[in-house]
Amino acid sequence: MTIKQQFSIDFNYDIFFSRDAFDPQNPILVNVLTENGAREGKAIVIIDGGLLSSMPLLRVKIEQYFSAHSSLRLLAPVTVVIGGEDVKNDSKELFKILELINTAQVDRHAYVIGIGGGAVLDMVGFASAIGHRGIRHVRFPSTVLSQNDSGVGVKNGVNAFNKKNFIGSFYPPFAVINDFSLLQTLHDRDWRAGTSEALKVALIMDLEFFEWLEKYATQIRDRDLGKMEYLITRCAQLHAQHIVGNNDPFETGSSRPLDFGHWAAHKLEQLSDFSIKHGEAVAIGISLDIAYANRAGFITDDILERILHTIENLGLDTFHDLFFNESGIEFNPDLMVGLEEFREHLGGELTITMIERIGTKFDVHEMNPKWLQDAALKLKNKYQVHAS
Amino acid sequence: MTIKQQFSIDFNYDIFFSRDAFDPQNPILVNVLTENGAREGKAIVIIDGGLLSSMPLLRVKIEQYFSAHSSLRLLAPVTVVIGGEDVKNDSKELFKILELINTAQVDRHAYVIGIGGGAVLDMVGFASAIGHRGIRHVRFPSTVLSQNDSGVGVKNGVNAFNKKNFIGSFYPPFAVINDFSLLQTLHDRDWRAGTSEALKVALIMDLEFFEWLEKYATQIRDRDLGKMEYLITRCAQLHAQHIVGNNDPFETGSSRPLDFGHWAAHKLEQLSDFSIKHGEAVAIGISLDIAYANRAGFITDDILERILHTIENLGLDTFHDLFFNESGIEFNPDLMVGLEEFREHLGGELTITMIERIGTKFDVHEMNPKWLQDAALKLKNKYQVHAS
Repeated sequence: MTIKQQFSIDFNYDIFFSRDAFDPQNPILVNVLTENGAREGKAIVIIDGGLLSSMPLLRVKIEQYFSAHSSLRLLAPVTVVIGGEDVKNDSKELFKILELINTAQVDRHAYVIGIGGGAVLDMVGFASAIGHRGIRHVRFPSTVLSQNDSGVGVKNGVNAFNKKNFIGSFYPPFAVINDFSLLQTLHDRDWRAGTSEALKVALIMDLEFFEWLEKYATQIRDRDLGKMEYLITRCAQLHAQHIVGNNDPFETGSSRPLDFGHWAAHKLEQLSDFSIKHGEAVAIGISLDIAYANRAGFITDDILERILHTIENLGLDTFHDLFFNESGIEFNPDLMVGLEEFREHLGGELTITMIERIGTKFDVHEMNPKWLQDAALKLKNKYQVHAS
Repeated sequence: MTIKQQFSIDFNYDIFFSRDAFDPQNPILVNVLTENGAREGKAIVIIDGGLLSSMPLLRVKIEQYFSAHSSLRLLAPVTVVIGGEDVKNDSKELFKILELINTAQVDRHAYVIGIGGGAVLDMVGFASAIGHRGIRHVRFPSTVLSQNDSGVGVKNGVNAFNKKNFIGSFYPPFAVINDFSLLQTLHDRDWRAGTSEALKVALIMDLEFFEWLEKYATQIRDRDLGKMEYLITRCAQLHAQHIVGNNDPFETGSSRPLDFGHWAAHKLEQLSDFSIKHGEAVAIGISLDIAYANRAGFITDDILERILHTIENLGLDTFHDLFFNESGIEFNPDLMVGLEEFREHLGGELTITMIERIGTKFDVHEMNPKWLQDAALKLKNKYQVHAS
């Protein structure tokens, strides 16, 4: 005898776009925390230390927001964690949040609010996913990268065994609030880095959006906030659409187009001890993969040039010395390992997303090492000409 | 602007009932591991140390099963973890499995097979759920308790901060294989303990099944394997039905009927340093809750007697000294804490399952401390009369 167990779970969450979300007049957060008709919206708030140091008044503003609404209750003082990738490498930070969930008596009907960059949200999201087998998680992404990409998705994770996101889960947030005001104090490097994910979704999904990016790349780089708000909103929309449209939100298959350019990016981050930021690495990884696509005959020289030019105009690099070993000619075997690690993390057959036109993707299942080397050399030469 | 993100995930898995699952002629496991048309079913196997010490040949049999099928590949030697609740208390055991997932290069399309009691499966299931954000998990429950209850469900977890399952997730297995041969060497205590979950589902869902249990209780206790196979199959069926029928498999609401009798059970286990086994604690917890139901006027004396009598005939206790503080009269305040911990783990409003007839449940949202004390005293008196 066999029991055939079968059921579906519905997931739904809203992604809001706003400014000054912690102005007591802004109703988004209070509505989210009390939307189920709860008498009281109970929450803890975890904030990225990097964000807090550039916006020192934020902590008080958050506490004032909670005080201003009698239907809300802060179960513990606002808690600060270290910002950047370190928060995913140091298991003490994860443990600190789990301990807070315990001591503040956060239950499955209360909320864990994370405010910060993608790394902090990944860690806080994972703590929320596993504490009491899952607590409601509300995200306030605070960088371009997290507002347009990871923050609106369903994944979380921490690093282990020197591998990015080795431990994590698929756990949709309860809500995402993209507060553009949090971007004001971003360093230029972070501002620019986040635009690479917009370029990515444009390349695999939307020619029109690419043309918009191509047209306004320098204005975006030079901190035109209006343009950036459009970039984030459109990118988040395409990212969210992809998650639903692909019919595999929890990635049980082998194809993962949102990871276009990411196999090399993940490895470059790790090989550089995370001195290359994720968004920067994605721009470099995309450059490598489109140069490969060109070498393989998938895209014309013309298209390659347009894309590389746009990446440069966004203020991002298209090349890195780590493409090569010490010889400066042979493709870096340590980087090559990233291809197998990418396959292993995804599971099943190696599946790399390529484009055949701007806005149109397809999958390949192997990469020719010789072509990869040629692609890297082409980028190196262009880069040196450009730099000289 | 707001993006409304909405999608469904379909989950389905088979629960098999068999004997000698590792006989090379038994096709169940090989079919499961290659069902997706994979060229090769790659797996690691984690086994409960307690089970292995009572069935020392099992390791070799497993390895022979893999050798006998060219479509299967064991990615690492069979790995042993400590059995019982300790495996959930010691994070080193969890870390060991995550490390094995890394070193054996287990990917999201490979399988983590867990063989053992409920505690081992909870820990191995959790490691499977978070490694690479989720690896396929196949379970071989090896005790009555895990074959009829936790092993067929969707939950996993480990203990932290002195709380059971403080960390865990909802993560349906890829398949469950209930191999009755694994029960042969069970100690009597474990054999009997597992029957309390069958009593539980009968009480809340199925009068006919209760009557069957009532009729055969002593035969079941005295190790009639045929009767036990029926008990497990029927209980697993009702458990699985409940998960689907309740329309809340991931328990986002506050009602959790499968935890009937469990608020006290969880706490009794912890207060006794886990010297009381889970199944034994459930029998005691059910006794307390039905005595309470009787005191509150929900069920007649007659029904209370029938159920207590059946519990005794199954060879299980209906009382424990931990019901009281040192005075022997006042209800144990430490046990009372279990009520709040139960609410907190579940979240939202306190919701305790009660029965109004055998087979028919309903929810209450508070428990009268005085009635609880009366219920405990009644059980104490009965127990003393019975013992004398």
